[in-house]
Amino acid sequence: MKYSSKILEQAVHHFSKLPGIGKKNALRMALFLAGRSEEHTDAFAEAIKALGNDLKKCTHCFNYADDIICEICSDPVRKKNQICVVESVRDVMAIEDTQQFNGVYHVLGGIISPIDGVGPEDIKIAEMMERVEKLEEVEIIMAISPTIEGETTTYYISKQLKKYDVKLSVIARGVSFGGDLEYADEVTLGRSIVARLPYEQ
Amino acid sequence: MKYSSKILEQAVHHFSKLPGIGKKNALRMALFLAGRSEEHTDAFAEAIKALGNDLKKCTHCFNYADDIICEICSDPVRKKNQICVVESVRDVMAIEDTQQFNGVYHVLGGIISPIDGVGPEDIKIAEMMERVEKLEEVEIIMAISPTIEGETTTYYISKQLKKYDVKLSVIARGVSFGGDLEYADEVTLGRSIVARLPYEQ
Repeated sequence: MKYSSKILEQAVHHFSKLPGIGKKNALRMALFLAGRSEEHTDAFAEAIKALGNDLKKCTHCFNYADDIICEICSDPVRKKNQICVVESVRDVMAIEDTQQFNGVYHVLGGIISPIDGVGPEDIKIAEMMERVEKLEEVEIIMAISPTIEGETTTYYISKQLKKYDVKLSVIARGVSFGGDLEYADEVTLGRSIVARLPYEQ
Repeated sequence: MKYSSKILEQAVHHFSKLPGIGKKNALRMALFLAGRSEEHTDAFAEAIKALGNDLKKCTHCFNYADDIICEICSDPVRKKNQICVVESVRDVMAIEDTQQFNGVYHVLGGIISPIDGVGPEDIKIAEMMERVEKLEEVEIIMAISPTIEGETTTYYISKQLKKYDVKLSVIARGVSFGGDLEYADEVTLGRSIVARLPYEQ
């Protein structure tokens, strides 16, 4: 694409590097911002600058934070010995949105994947064990995606946790609520039959 | 959605205001940038800042430019008396991409639309007439979308141009190249029969 302005071209270049954004969409965004006020673009620029310069990771759970400890870990109401282990920050947000969990998190920052060259030492497993060691009556809830790599990670962590006296659980898997049974995949459906639960009458 | 960081929340807020971007996609973008280097986010921020502070509109054609005259208008190779009239900057880019046009543009910045309260005085028609007045042997190519508003705009401009000695044309409309005839809409197909062209044998 040919641009009449280097400034516009530069902005489109940056937008098009974002995940899921092609050249056409990037142009649409750049033109949208070109039509906004200086205050608006300045505020946007500051927000992006802050992502690179000021955003920190919580030293406890490795979630993104504005300080050395994130808002969840520093919340006095939340149970510090109930740790939900997740792959990424996005998973934290997804679980937070459900409003069903009142403990804290541990963000691994990846999952064990030999194909991608990611081993146990590349993700925050050692740091997790350090946390567990310092706490009492710990409950660990593994909330890792039920993929092969995810299951491997859960398995590895469960082995590592054996030497500690922790209550370990895995989030329930099965057919989705509101989902149509006939469209559920075979593995999920099969496992949900094997892992059937008693129905309270 | 709950955020562990105000910085992250602020960035997501800005991204989600972009056209076609929802909260989930905005978060994906913000997290992507959070994982990049400071240099990267700083450069992105600068590019956005420049859109608001430094981007100009060409005083000739009203296309976006880095200077008071855009690169197309200042290109000595391009025919200054062949003016393609378009609605927006995006149309300029679309036509430039075809590499079939070697004249200059005139960006109206909208089309006449009484329903939206856009009259002829709200778009750059007067400025276009001023340009035409100063030139000789002018050819005007109307490249406005063939909608009701677009046709109205083309009609209005054609009337305004009557007092000048200009060659006026409209971009060809008809069935798309590579398109399937049976899927062409009725109006397009109907008009393309009425406006049939002699076939060179």
